[in-house]
Amino acid sequence: MEKVDIISVGMTRFGKHPEKTGRDLILEALLETIKNVDKGIDIKKEVEALFVGYFTPTFYEHQAHYGPLVTEWLGISGIPAFRTESACASSSAALSAGFFAISSGIYDVVIVIGVEKMTTLDTSEVTDALAVAADDIFDLSTGITFPGLFALMAQEYFQKYGENWENLQAVTIKNHYNGSLNSKAQFQNTISSIAKKTALKKGCSFKNDLDFLNSQFNPFVAYPLRLYDCAPISDGAAIAILANSKISKRFTDKPIHIIGIGIGTDSLALANRPDLTTSRAVINSSNAAYKMAKVGPKNIDVAELHDCFSINEVLLSEDLGFFEKGHGLVAIKEGRTSLQGDIPINTDGGLKSKGHPVGATGIAMIHEIWLQLRGEAGSRQIKGNPRIGLTCNVGGSSASSFVFIFEN
Amino acid sequence: MEKVDIISVGMTRFGKHPEKTGRDLILEALLETIKNVDKGIDIKKEVEALFVGYFTPTFYEHQAHYGPLVTEWLGISGIPAFRTESACASSSAALSAGFFAISSGIYDVVIVIGVEKMTTLDTSEVTDALAVAADDIFDLSTGITFPGLFALMAQEYFQKYGENWENLQAVTIKNHYNGSLNSKAQFQNTISSIAKKTALKKGCSFKNDLDFLNSQFNPFVAYPLRLYDCAPISDGAAIAILANSKISKRFTDKPIHIIGIGIGTDSLALANRPDLTTSRAVINSSNAAYKMAKVGPKNIDVAELHDCFSINEVLLSEDLGFFEKGHGLVAIKEGRTSLQGDIPINTDGGLKSKGHPVGATGIAMIHEIWLQLRGEAGSRQIKGNPRIGLTCNVGGSSASSFVFIFEN
Repeated sequence: MEKVDIISVGMTRFGKHPEKTGRDLILEALLETIKNVDKGIDIKKEVEALFVGYFTPTFYEHQAHYGPLVTEWLGISGIPAFRTESACASSSAALSAGFFAISSGIYDVVIVIGVEKMTTLDTSEVTDALAVAADDIFDLSTGITFPGLFALMAQEYFQKYGENWENLQAVTIKNHYNGSLNSKAQFQNTISSIAKKTALKKGCSFKNDLDFLNSQFNPFVAYPLRLYDCAPISDGAAIAILANSKISKRFTDKPIHIIGIGIGTDSLALANRPDLTTSRAVINSSNAAYKMAKVGPKNIDVAELHDCFSINEVLLSEDLGFFEKGHGLVAIKEGRTSLQGDIPINTDGGLKSKGHPVGATGIAMIHEIWLQLRGEAGSRQIKGNPRIGLTCNVGGSSASSFVFIFEN
Repeated sequence: MEKVDIISVGMTRFGKHPEKTGRDLILEALLETIKNVDKGIDIKKEVEALFVGYFTPTFYEHQAHYGPLVTEWLGISGIPAFRTESACASSSAALSAGFFAISSGIYDVVIVIGVEKMTTLDTSEVTDALAVAADDIFDLSTGITFPGLFALMAQEYFQKYGENWENLQAVTIKNHYNGSLNSKAQFQNTISSIAKKTALKKGCSFKNDLDFLNSQFNPFVAYPLRLYDCAPISDGAAIAILANSKISKRFTDKPIHIIGIGIGTDSLALANRPDLTTSRAVINSSNAAYKMAKVGPKNIDVAELHDCFSINEVLLSEDLGFFEKGHGLVAIKEGRTSLQGDIPINTDGGLKSKGHPVGATGIAMIHEIWLQLRGEAGSRQIKGNPRIGLTCNVGGSSASSFVFIFEN
């Protein structure tokens, strides 16, 4: 089994890009990725294959078959390429395909891409596009969409562990703070600054962040989840270049090693799960990744978790073994997952603040781990020379999960 | 690099299955696949991952995220799974992912699936669903759809090589004959028998097959291509189980070895190709597969080629090196690709007669090669103990291509 390194990453800013198609976003991200290869790369000569994750291009661009589309658009037509899909974890599936391909020894250098161009549609249409990540027969036929699915998880969590929505706001407040330090984030404002601006504009006042989040300016989306518990609709692309460890030093003296990979699934239909506060997909994928990397949750220095809704950061942090079941929210409130904490989570602002162009999210997580493990995350760089990072990117209601572990 | 075998295959009959969803078709195909494992298999214990190719499930079933959907429906929820897409080659992409994964040594036994449930939509809606395999900006904006794209290729071929539509009918006649011997085919009638039935019903007569094919009963779809030059709209699923060669004997004494794999791309937009009678995707993929397998076109005993339109069987047979450019049609007319020929092509009836549920097609091709190389193809079994088989499955206007070479 060949070892696999990441030799570069790049991404667009996440947000609204009305002037750009999916392929344009990819090109922008690629230009940065090439620039980030420390010793340079000639992609026409070196890249042997390409895998691209894009959840629902047919909805947004009336387009599929993104493999040949992208190789052509990037000027490397001819090489092997195909698209992968696992809902919001589509680009983690692309990274998996690229990892397998290099690990097998068939290819040495591979580009993996994540992209989603969502703002061509309005919110109700995007809700429908996202809904195909749930079970059309057993979930959607009840009338539920994704905010509702995660609201059910939140309700069960609150009931089972005596938690509440007020405590959950620690996730939103932390992630908006981290996002305020990230020039690639869709939202670069702390909740405090948003509250201050709203107060000025509306001629009212708030006692603190929670007072603002509990106001009419944070309306319910699906009880108990409110607007600021939900990741936004975004456009964006993110790219990583993978190489066989044997040759990665040709491109950089600071490659990041992929030391663990795990994939798992749970029932797509939420009704078929015995416990909504845990996902077998996450548990199986993390167990496999820990085993392969020969590390445990205690060895992780920094992590990116899929906070499509605030509650999910809590659920994942527990299923990954960072905290005991029912104790995740306490740990977040205590600051243990902040930039100064013992296990910083979503240092880039997470999906909530950085944005969530769903197909791009998996590789954008890796973009952040790459920066943190190389000590290049600027004002949000965590201290203590982090050595091991983890990403957990899930699809739908955590019905699929991809966990990667990285070492510098 | 671990070696990879196919230990079993299975498929539904292709055609209309109004009573079955995509997941039902997969379940039906899996039951046959399990039955076809010579020494039996316990899929709950043995299968470690699953990859599923389905081109446009969102159009047909308002559903994506087929990875966890399928693992749940087959009773193996929890294992790694994701979907692959490369238009009509989506399940060859699934096979590629499965091949890479076993070849890397990460998994030992993997299920790869192809499926498409198309008849939920009417013909104009299916035409739109298929159209997303072309370039939305540079192809579709001209008003063209797939019959038109392949009609342009046919016109250029006829002009360049002095060929004509009458000669092209050799493909249709051969494939309908082969399909008449295949109980899994959507159409199990020779052109002669269709002509005879039509003559009886309409009170007219035809001198021969060509006379019928040249009549009003074979209307133009996109000049010069007519109805019988086009593969039909179909439902269906096909499955293969892959295993590391080191353990495949646990499941069967007659595994089929995958000795070559090649993937290639060409420009998605047809306008960007200098020559419409050839595809760089097909050439690159076959070169890679031949090199890996250490064989050439002369060593191939039987092949399955992607005849989505009759002209494409000709183009592929030339790009694969079976015949010189411009000589493919002559060879087919001479019977060299018939069941008794020196290089039998599409012994199962091809996409034309067997049917073309696009996501399922790649693995259905492998189903046929499996039967032929094991000597189990019944009345259509080719003589001489075929040893090496090839599949060429393309996406869209051959903008992506997957070539696999198998040995018994």
